Amino acid sequence: MTSASFDYTPLLAPNLPVPAAKWTGFPKYNFIGGHNDPAHVPVDALTVAAVAVLKREGVSLATYGLNSGPLGYKPLREFLVGKLKSHAGIACSADEILITSGSLQGIDLVNGILLAPGDTVLIEQDTYGGALTRLVRVGARPVGIPLDREGLRLDALEAALKDLKRQGITPKYIYTIPTVQNPTGAIMGEERRAGLLKLAQAYGVPVFEDECYSDLVWSGTRPPALYAMAKGNGVIHIGSFSKSIAPALRVGYVIAGWDVLSRMLALKQDAGSGALEQMVLAEFCTSHFATHVPNLTRGLKAKLDVLMESLSEQFGTAAEFTEPEGGIFLWIKLPDQVDTVKLSQAALAAGVSLNPGPEWSTDKAHGKSRLRLCFANPAPETIREGVAVLADICSREFGVPTRIANVERSAAS
Amino acid sequence: MTSASFDYTPLLAPNLPVPAAKWTGFPKYNFIGGHNDPAHVPVDALTVAAVAVLKREGVSLATYGLNSGPLGYKPLREFLVGKLKSHAGIACSADEILITSGSLQGIDLVNGILLAPGDTVLIEQDTYGGALTRLVRVGARPVGIPLDREGLRLDALEAALKDLKRQGITPKYIYTIPTVQNPTGAIMGEERRAGLLKLAQAYGVPVFEDECYSDLVWSGTRPPALYAMAKGNGVIHIGSFSKSIAPALRVGYVIAGWDVLSRMLALKQDAGSGALEQMVLAEFCTSHFATHVPNLTRGLKAKLDVLMESLSEQFGTAAEFTEPEGGIFLWIKLPDQVDTVKLSQAALAAGVSLNPGPEWSTDKAHGKSRLRLCFANPAPETIREGVAVLADICSREFGVPTRIANVERSAAS
Repeated sequence: MTSASFDYTPLLAPNLPVPAAKWTGFPKYNFIGGHNDPAHVPVDALTVAAVAVLKREGVSLATYGLNSGPLGYKPLREFLVGKLKSHAGIACSADEILITSGSLQGIDLVNGILLAPGDTVLIEQDTYGGALTRLVRVGARPVGIPLDREGLRLDALEAALKDLKRQGITPKYIYTIPTVQNPTGAIMGEERRAGLLKLAQAYGVPVFEDECYSDLVWSGTRPPALYAMAKGNGVIHIGSFSKSIAPALRVGYVIAGWDVLSRMLALKQDAGSGALEQMVLAEFCTSHFATHVPNLTRGLKAKLDVLMESLSEQFGTAAEFTEPEGGIFLWIKLPDQVDTVKLSQAALAAGVSLNPGPEWSTDKAHGKSRLRLCFANPAPETIREGVAVLADICSREFGVPTRIANVERSAAS
Repeated sequence: MTSASFDYTPLLAPNLPVPAAKWTGFPKYNFIGGHNDPAHVPVDALTVAAVAVLKREGVSLATYGLNSGPLGYKPLREFLVGKLKSHAGIACSADEILITSGSLQGIDLVNGILLAPGDTVLIEQDTYGGALTRLVRVGARPVGIPLDREGLRLDALEAALKDLKRQGITPKYIYTIPTVQNPTGAIMGEERRAGLLKLAQAYGVPVFEDECYSDLVWSGTRPPALYAMAKGNGVIHIGSFSKSIAPALRVGYVIAGWDVLSRMLALKQDAGSGALEQMVLAEFCTSHFATHVPNLTRGLKAKLDVLMESLSEQFGTAAEFTEPEGGIFLWIKLPDQVDTVKLSQAALAAGVSLNPGPEWSTDKAHGKSRLRLCFANPAPETIREGVAVLADICSREFGVPTRIANVERSAAS
């Protein structure tokens, strides 16, 4: 069956994004996306949780939102109250938490209540690509703030705020990933957090704090959330279970005051997020979150070590990076002559997927020779092989790294 | 913790809907929403399905979209291929099916690819309130087409198409719920379906076919879907598991050609719909859908009978309705002096929720003395009590029905 003969083209809305390409499966060496480690999906405990919660409350699936209303399954929000208190220092009630379909829906809701075309937002110069594409889609203007090893640079933030104020522009928010910054892996210290909040408050700009990755800190501890330090004042916080449990579940959350959540709920016209996942997560997390996460992060750290070793072996000094303090990705600088957009195309043809720097940065020139590699999903051996393939392609296309090993292999054959 | 001191008001996007009210639980007599019968949630079989599918494929939760790509979990799409073939006559492949987060996301995606502010769409005069509110939100103009006992009236449709053509306007789509129309419960016959398709094709307008309720037909059979009769040409079809299994799951689907789905996928930036629910549904439905649905519909029919009996007892001839051929709702006409918006407010204060006609109609005058009552969720005794409370309130506010029974009770006390 085909709809080829009816032509929808003249009826399409203006300014649609380009159509999706057909999916052809994951590449052999998959270094993109927030996929997690298959070995650390807690399948047995999730199964036990599913059986328990379905037996106890399965009939409530007959009602939209279970019996918890539009903010989401109450036991999951109650678990989060405790977890956020002990982990991130946030003292909030279950009524300040809105469960969303992944933290992506949280980003959409923040943008939905605040942004109109032409609006300005401040954003870390190197940042999550999905946040950037959403801003473009809304027609907002992202102004990038440079980073250092501790994340957002306050001198640059202050300069941008001053400059915009001179132009009569109030940015709609400052978007930051303070704990395990995407893509740099930086963790912002408490003093800098305090400085950031002070600046934001002085200029009347809310802070949009994205803590998607904040559970995956090698040390197990992290500074208090900006939401905690501000006592919720002028901060909207989002988080997710995608990185700590499993990304396919699509469960995230927004923490904000009722003035914000009531506006978001009016836009969240989806009749609730998936109930089974909320129920199973609440049941699982209440018993197992505290032990599961350290196991997971140990596994992730081991994979990061494999990736860093492989890069050193294959790229030598041509690949520069700062060891991240947690997370699932590594941000790498290659020599200036490397164009990572071109590299990513050549690599994909060889089965290696990567995020070229310009997709993850507001400054395309800065991003040009940078790339992001995600390491949580591929097996250690796949990481090693993939990095070797990538080094071969980079060498062929851009002359770096110089491939002594290859020359030797060629000479020997 | 409160965010009261930071004032988001000056930063809000323009034209936001009014903020949500705090949720205070379901009313005692809940006659609104697509809630289902708690007694017919197949909890045990869903549990068995969850255990089986998690054991077999739980590790795939580590990857976004499992191993099925952005169209959704392949076994669920494959189940739908068979179900849609045998039930609705649709011969499609799994690649024509996009799994969505409820059919509401399907409506959003159809609107997303086709509508811009000011666009016109043709829609059944009495229709799903959520479809109407979405059109208002997009800034589109719904033109209502009157209905009869078989649904959309073709003479009125043709007149509207002609009239719009004369004005140089091509409507973006014709939205119809042909099988168990919401709110009338009508089922459009095959001949009228053919006529509708002929008109749509003659005027170059796509048909947007919403089959959310089509599994809940008392007779168990229904005419072929418009998508089937048109061989997919110029028809976009949506459906849902909310009504046949459980609404809280939030799993629906769109059926369309790749020209349409590729456009929708470019807008569906949610990293996939909930995987656990797709997995459990696929596992459950493959074995149990065919036996579950007839059990469910028998239960729903029994509740409809209770509702119709109660209305006859309490309202007598003041409540007019046509017995629906399936579904979960009854569309009722009260005497002209009744204003159902006012009635709904008075009723809610007494714990009875209902949909006033104007929310479910493009013609507010036509809807004024009509209302929709959903009967799937409340227990039979609750239905009886709720209708009695409603009749008391209607009698008090509008003088109908005349309450002979009450007078007698008063006299006896």
